[in-house]
Order: sequence, then structure tokens, then C-alpha cells
Amino acid sequence: MAVYTEVSDDELTRFVDQFDLGAVLSSKGIAEGVENTNFLIRTEKGPYILTLYEKRVELGDLPFFLGLMEHLSQRGVPCPTPVHTRDGAALSEVAGRPAAIITFLEGMWRRRPEAYHCAELGRALARMHSAAADFPMTRPNALGVEAWRPLFEQSADRADEVFPGLAGEIGNALDRIETRWPGELPTGTIHADLFPDNVFFLGRELSGLIDFYFACTDALAYDVGICLNAWCFEPDLSFNVTKARALLSGYAEVRPFTEVEYAALPLLAEGAAIRFLLTRLHDWLRVPPGALVTPKDPVEYLRRLRFHHAVASTRDYGLDR
Amino acid sequence: MAVYTEVSDDELTRFVDQFDLGAVLSSKGIAEGVENTNFLIRTEKGPYILTLYEKRVELGDLPFFLGLMEHLSQRGVPCPTPVHTRDGAALSEVAGRPAAIITFLEGMWRRRPEAYHCAELGRALARMHSAAADFPMTRPNALGVEAWRPLFEQSADRADEVFPGLAGEIGNALDRIETRWPGELPTGTIHADLFPDNVFFLGRELSGLIDFYFACTDALAYDVGICLNAWCFEPDLSFNVTKARALLSGYAEVRPFTEVEYAALPLLAEGAAIRFLLTRLHDWLRVPPGALVTPKDPVEYLRRLRFHHAVASTRDYGLDR
Repeated sequence: MAVYTEVSDDELTRFVDQFDLGAVLSSKGIAEGVENTNFLIRTEKGPYILTLYEKRVELGDLPFFLGLMEHLSQRGVPCPTPVHTRDGAALSEVAGRPAAIITFLEGMWRRRPEAYHCAELGRALARMHSAAADFPMTRPNALGVEAWRPLFEQSADRADEVFPGLAGEIGNALDRIETRWPGELPTGTIHADLFPDNVFFLGRELSGLIDFYFACTDALAYDVGICLNAWCFEPDLSFNVTKARALLSGYAEVRPFTEVEYAALPLLAEGAAIRFLLTRLHDWLRVPPGALVTPKDPVEYLRRLRFHHAVASTRDYGLDR
Repeated sequence: MAVYTEVSDDELTRFVDQFDLGAVLSSKGIAEGVENTNFLIRTEKGPYILTLYEKRVELGDLPFFLGLMEHLSQRGVPCPTPVHTRDGAALSEVAGRPAAIITFLEGMWRRRPEAYHCAELGRALARMHSAAADFPMTRPNALGVEAWRPLFEQSADRADEVFPGLAGEIGNALDRIETRWPGELPTGTIHADLFPDNVFFLGRELSGLIDFYFACTDALAYDVGICLNAWCFEPDLSFNVTKARALLSGYAEVRPFTEVEYAALPLLAEGAAIRFLLTRLHDWLRVPPGALVTPKDPVEYLRRLRFHHAVASTRDYGLDR
């Protein structure tokens, strides 16, 4: 939530001159995006987002992210799409950083999504998965199941500082999840971070999916597991089965789950819970003293993990089977 | 440069419903304004700025600030103006904070203003002073000449940590400035913080003056002294007499200086330098450990102070007299 790189007005003008967008009329650094610097610019053609990719983003991954957004928006998925320079490039450079101009999407994210938002989200996620089916590029999931144990080992010795018994509980969960992780699920391009702040609505209608910078190639139903964690728990961490039913039914309307996916959903949701538990634990233990940014509480994901672990079948997610 | 208060989508929708602006289409927290939280919102009527006033702003001062912006923009000064609710209020409340919607101004601030920007700035400042002549409200300058010694006393014992001999040099300057400070200058409403980041340009043309939250009642020429400090020194802190001449001549085209103002300018510029030196010194000595925000270097203003102290007459500012 910061502007990491300043861009002078001259640099910005020269940069935007590469595009067929007319003159720049204004530019505001926006407090969004933990990894990158974003400016909301207005040109004679309208509003756009200028993103400067900061050091935490791999330069080699940018063609995948930008190519995916372009592929999806060409197929009607409401997501930002890179604007090309007159020379045809989606990726350019400003202020010494790789940079892209992407289209601006109207809409606002819902801090308290209701069940109909979850249904919309489910449908949009399934449409995204279907639209990406012929996307030719792949990118391994750097935070997928193989990454969890090495990530845990970086924090295992201090995990109990955060919550008594946490290290043991994560260790047991990892043993269980790794052993049972299904190998033969339908895979494809997943968003991998589709939290409410990455989904815009205008009124009741979903108007945009944003922030594809964790997108990768993995099991499609794992993306659904992430959304169950991100959308279906109340602020007190109770599970809202009405929202889960809406999300899963919405998804299945567009892309029906396979039998293997149905059976795997609780485990995939458990995996998604441990993935966010582990990254939050990692960040929690490494807050620089005096930092202004409060890290997110890892224990919230321990409670989600426990919930999914106790799930006997997808009936507990509100489905009829 | 932060979003201090989050506003939920429901709160925002209810808030904007009070205005005749149509539905909210988007909202982005913007990384501007050290004191307040600002959102760039888009409604069906276009872009606006939503400002939430944080604790550092005195609630009792808001009618002055908002009234001034409205007064000036009604007289053709390009500045934001508050949008009124259907009930006629300029000041309202959202997320437990006093809040206002103000008009959005196009343009970008110049990180490296040139002489013609300084001339434009001078003319706009004089127009602002003239347009405010019949503004009926007043607000004492909380950072005016009477405030400097008490402010200095809060940092005097540690000033030499920042720069050897700084305490003595400030003490001497204060003695000299307080003794010689002129009492009979034309007064009125001044901006008091018209740095380049508060002035927008579209191409060569000045398109907006923003951030009136230091505005107050004081000597008009003191505002000019602030601008001499803010606009006419190069990054290496050398004084650019061409820019100063442009600024002062631009101002005098619109509102000629009185004889007393001419004679007082070097002292007023010295006063402006010490005002920013003292607030920067105060903040420099009180940075919380580990803070992400780097305070601005007070010594830059010691060097400006020395320059103005050595000025013999306004000839040193590039004027012919």
C-alpha cells in the first residue's frame, strides 16, 4: 500500500507519448498493491492504471501475467488488459522500472460480500478458468503444495511464539495434506489470490477481476479452495454455509466439478488455508521493528484450517452431495 | 502519504447518496496528503476527491478552509471547491470522520519547475490574494512569527545534534527577525504552503492550486516569501535569480507590491525559511524508530535562511530596484 517509485512529470509524459492515448492530464499514486507501485492516470482517452513492477516481481514472469490478462479480456472476462505502445509492446519501462499501462475497471470491492456476491464470484472464476483453457503459457505455482514444507521450515522454530502448539499442528497438517494431495485433478491457469479486494462490483454485478500477479498453473479446484477461505468466513471466523453453497453452485453452473474435484475440495481448501497461514506466519515473524504496516494475523488461517480438516464431505459446504 | 481511515463500500455509497452526484463507480485511496486521507472517487457525474479529515486537523478550522476554497473558485481561482449535499452542507461525515467531497482538478505538479512556471505561480498567487480580499473569515497563523520561538524552544537543546552550531544560529536569527518584523504590511488570506506539489500545470499553463489546509490570515508578502523559498532554489540549494525575478514580476503584474513590502521581502523570506527550518527540525528530532517515512532535512532551510540573510535588497532577487 505505497508508492515505492516516484515518476517525474517529464518521465511520465515521455512514457505515455509511446502510446496512442493523447496527453496525460493527471496522475495520482494509489494506495493499492503491496508489491508494485500503481498510478491512476487520466489521459485524453480516459482513465488508466500505470503499474511499475518493483523488485519483488520476477521480470521473467511479466509476459505471463500481461499475456494472461490480454487473453482473458479478449475472451470477455472483465479484467484489466495491457495497452500496447505504438511499437506493439505491452511491457515498457519508466523511472528505471519495468512498467505497463493497463485499462481501468470501474467498480468497488466488497468489504462484506453477501451470498449473491459469492455466487457471482463463483461464476466469474469458472468463466476465467474456461477462458484460460487455451492460454498457451504456463507458470509453476511458487506457493503450491511443494513449497509449503520449505516455507514452514523457515518459521517452524518460532511458530509457537505466535500460538502455543502451532508448530506441531502445522507439521501434522502438512504430513496429512502432502500424503493425500491428489495428483490427477484438472489443471490450468488459476488466479491464486482471488480475495474480495481483487474483485470489483457495480451494484450487484461483478465488474472486474484484478491483480493477476500470483496467477500460475495449478489445479483449477485449488483456486476454488482459496475462494472458500477468502469469501465464506465471517469476521468472527464462523463459516457461512450459505455463501459457500452460492460460490460452489455459481462455479458449477459454468464449469461443473468432476467427481475427483468434488471429493478433493475439503483437502484443497485445507491446503489453501495452510498456504496463507504459512505466508502470514512468515511475515508475522519478520516485521521490521517500528514498521507502519501491521502484518495480517496468521491465527485466522489456523482456524480456517481446522474447519476444513473437520469437514466430512462437500455437504458441509452446503452442497447436496 | 497514506490512507489512515478505511471506508467500507456501504458507508461510501450511503455517504455519496447525500450528494447529487449519481452512483459511485470507483474509489481509490490516493497516496497524497500527509495530514488527511484522500480518495479519488468516480461517480456518474465524473471524478471527485473525497477527503477525510484526520485528527491533526482542527474541526473548528474546516469551515474556514472549505469556505475559502468555495470563495476563491467562485472568483475564478483554479482551486478545488466543496460539493454541497442536497441539504446544502459542505462538511459532512463518513467512517466517523469529518469529510468533504471536493472537485477534481486536472494537471500535474512540476518536480522541476522552470522560470515560466514561477511566473505563472506568481500571477496565480497574486490573483488568489486579490480574490480573497473580500473573504469574510479569518484564521490566525498558527505557524506565524509569534509561534517560532516557542517551537524552537522545544528543539533548542538537541538542535546541535542535527548540525553543529545550529541552536546558536537559529537563536540569533530569531532575535534579528523578531526585532525587525514589520507590523504594517498589507494582510489578508494567505495559502502559507504553496510548494510545487500544491500547484498543478497542464503543459505550460497553471491549472490548479490545491491543499488549503495551512491557509490563514497573515501578511500577503509573507506568502511570496514562502514561494521564494519553495520555488527558486535549485536541488543543490543555489538560488536561481531568473526564477525569482519571474515569480516576483508575475506577482507584481497582478498585484503591485507596496514600498513597505519591497523593503520587507528579504526579511519575510528569512522568516519563511526559519518557519520551515523549525518544523522540519521538530519532526527530524521526533522520528519514531523504524518509521518508513523519512523526514525532510532541516539543514536545507538553514542554507536558505543564510542566503536571505545575506540579501542586501530586492536587486538580489532579480528586481531592478
